[in-house]
Amino acid sequence: MSATQAPESSTGHTSAVSPIETDALIIGAGPAGLFQAFQLGLQGIASHLVDALPHVGGQCAQLYGHKPIYDIPGIPVCTGTELAQLLDRQIAPMQVPRHLSQQIESLRQREDGRWLAQTTAGTAFAARSIFIAAGVGAFVPKALKVPGVDDLRPNQLHYHPLQLDMAIGRSVLVYGGDEEAVSAAIACASPLSCGANTGAGAAKTYLMHRRDAFQAEPGQLARLQQLRDSGAIEVVIGQITEARHAAGQLSAVQWMDGEGNEHPLSVDMLLVFLGISPRLGPISDWGLAIERKQLVVDPATQATSAAGIYAVGDIVTYPGKKKLILCAFHEAAMAAFAAAEYLQGEKPLLQYTTTSAKLHGILGVSHPGAQ
Amino acid sequence: MSATQAPESSTGHTSAVSPIETDALIIGAGPAGLFQAFQLGLQGIASHLVDALPHVGGQCAQLYGHKPIYDIPGIPVCTGTELAQLLDRQIAPMQVPRHLSQQIESLRQREDGRWLAQTTAGTAFAARSIFIAAGVGAFVPKALKVPGVDDLRPNQLHYHPLQLDMAIGRSVLVYGGDEEAVSAAIACASPLSCGANTGAGAAKTYLMHRRDAFQAEPGQLARLQQLRDSGAIEVVIGQITEARHAAGQLSAVQWMDGEGNEHPLSVDMLLVFLGISPRLGPISDWGLAIERKQLVVDPATQATSAAGIYAVGDIVTYPGKKKLILCAFHEAAMAAFAAAEYLQGEKPLLQYTTTSAKLHGILGVSHPGAQ
Repeated sequence: MSATQAPESSTGHTSAVSPIETDALIIGAGPAGLFQAFQLGLQGIASHLVDALPHVGGQCAQLYGHKPIYDIPGIPVCTGTELAQLLDRQIAPMQVPRHLSQQIESLRQREDGRWLAQTTAGTAFAARSIFIAAGVGAFVPKALKVPGVDDLRPNQLHYHPLQLDMAIGRSVLVYGGDEEAVSAAIACASPLSCGANTGAGAAKTYLMHRRDAFQAEPGQLARLQQLRDSGAIEVVIGQITEARHAAGQLSAVQWMDGEGNEHPLSVDMLLVFLGISPRLGPISDWGLAIERKQLVVDPATQATSAAGIYAVGDIVTYPGKKKLILCAFHEAAMAAFAAAEYLQGEKPLLQYTTTSAKLHGILGVSHPGAQ
Repeated sequence: MSATQAPESSTGHTSAVSPIETDALIIGAGPAGLFQAFQLGLQGIASHLVDALPHVGGQCAQLYGHKPIYDIPGIPVCTGTELAQLLDRQIAPMQVPRHLSQQIESLRQREDGRWLAQTTAGTAFAARSIFIAAGVGAFVPKALKVPGVDDLRPNQLHYHPLQLDMAIGRSVLVYGGDEEAVSAAIACASPLSCGANTGAGAAKTYLMHRRDAFQAEPGQLARLQQLRDSGAIEVVIGQITEARHAAGQLSAVQWMDGEGNEHPLSVDMLLVFLGISPRLGPISDWGLAIERKQLVVDPATQATSAAGIYAVGDIVTYPGKKKLILCAFHEAAMAAFAAAEYLQGEKPLLQYTTTSAKLHGILGVSHPGAQ
């Protein structure tokens, strides 16, 4: 069962693979999680990052990707995507492995004190410490909830952009009206222009939305219109009411037009873009102290109520907590110092990246004159 | 008595000018103070900045001006000067008046609750709230402590770089071996090349240091050598032991060479660069709760023990406090929210610079589509 196929499901997964042993597992790769990896790295603590989205940047890249942010200290203006890129470049020296498009679906403590975490994609971790930087929850695509969907076999229903070659020769229905839907329809319908895939695209591309109005950049809307005019994309105004299949093989969808009349449409692949909504998900089941859906932490350490589990960013609460990105950065530093003491058994010295030869080594920069 | 003339003095000043009325006075224009001004501005609170140095940036610009910092979130690398410039640009929309080269020497509460603050340069403020962002203290030039110095009249002894025209036609002794000393000597000895001052410089420029080794950029050292070779700068190896004057008018210094022999040197202006050292200064006399030389604050509000006085950055302590610039940024945000409630009588709503039309107005940016 893949994460993209059944985004709302977080049960039923079993895995016999041995877990990845790590000092720190960071849940969430938004600005808070990325900077957490950096601060842990400065403490000499290796970490892994997990995120539900297929890219780093979290809420910031997902909701403010192209919008300006003005209150990151020292950055008069940047977009959400630019901030994610800057942080990604900053943490590059730490070489943090990323496990994207998957959520942690279970977390329990092993007898030796390590936390066993398992993702919806079957990745398992045995981590000495956990850092929850999950923002307002995992950004999960809204699922298509119509009869027949749950019985489809893999690779017929997708909630994230496809690798282009997966649509070749298929009859594809893109369902949605936002930028992701428009991009996906264009990608499926456009003959590819380079390499081995020259000329190949979907056999047929439909784009279904409840009304004939799409949200995308002007350039994309113009391209969509070209492809509609040429017949490469057929726009259907309506809503899916059922997925028809034979033994799990998608054959058609049933759809309803504006007058309430239903029609069949033969397709063998569904790309669904109904928006992304944050879900706290299983985090609320892990037995951590929670207050009004926020994890309660000690602001001196960002420790939750469970030993070895820290939390930072929009998901936490403490007296005076403000949901600002710049506060998450501070919290990540506090958590890294606390975790260093927890993992290494002694209070770490405060060192400065400007002057510490040890930190220069970690950052991969050389300063012959450094102390 | 000017601040540059007697940096160690903080008494004896009297002023009858009426104070500047302001909602907020920020003491210290390092990264913490600059970002405090930004956060206050976002809350609609106007502020004034005061700093002992002749420029903004504080410790960061003074000690790490040309050195790289790697842990400002979202800025993979920048120098201290660059960080100060970025913050300066970020707070530009707030149009915060700066009062530089002066320290707050007294602070007391008026009967109406306002805080009366007075600087060593005679500027007075009546502020509804105070933000102490003074780092490890005011960066004050180390004073020349030899007989005769205290009796000199104004404009004969300086601890900061001069405006160039002040040295024209004077016999100048620059005392020190660091970059500031070398720059000052070069500036005094170099014929000015533009405008009304063409061809004018000091009548005579001496550069005295205890040994014949100067710390400066290679280009500056090369220029110094040129000016020594041409006779425009005369380097003297030794130490000042006395300032000679007649009725406060500097006539010469007495100096000692490496063998302990003393000599006179006729000069009528002294530029002293003996380094800069931080001094907590009068802050420790203001009756605020202090623990190991740090101001004790509540991390939820950054409030000190006095109503209306907040503190942020390296000068504060609270459980877990780390002396990192990125923590000061968070503290500035916390203090601004707390002060907004204190000054405006109600808890401010959390708004985002990406989406708030009110904040866009404050920032002077227009976003027709913003909510």
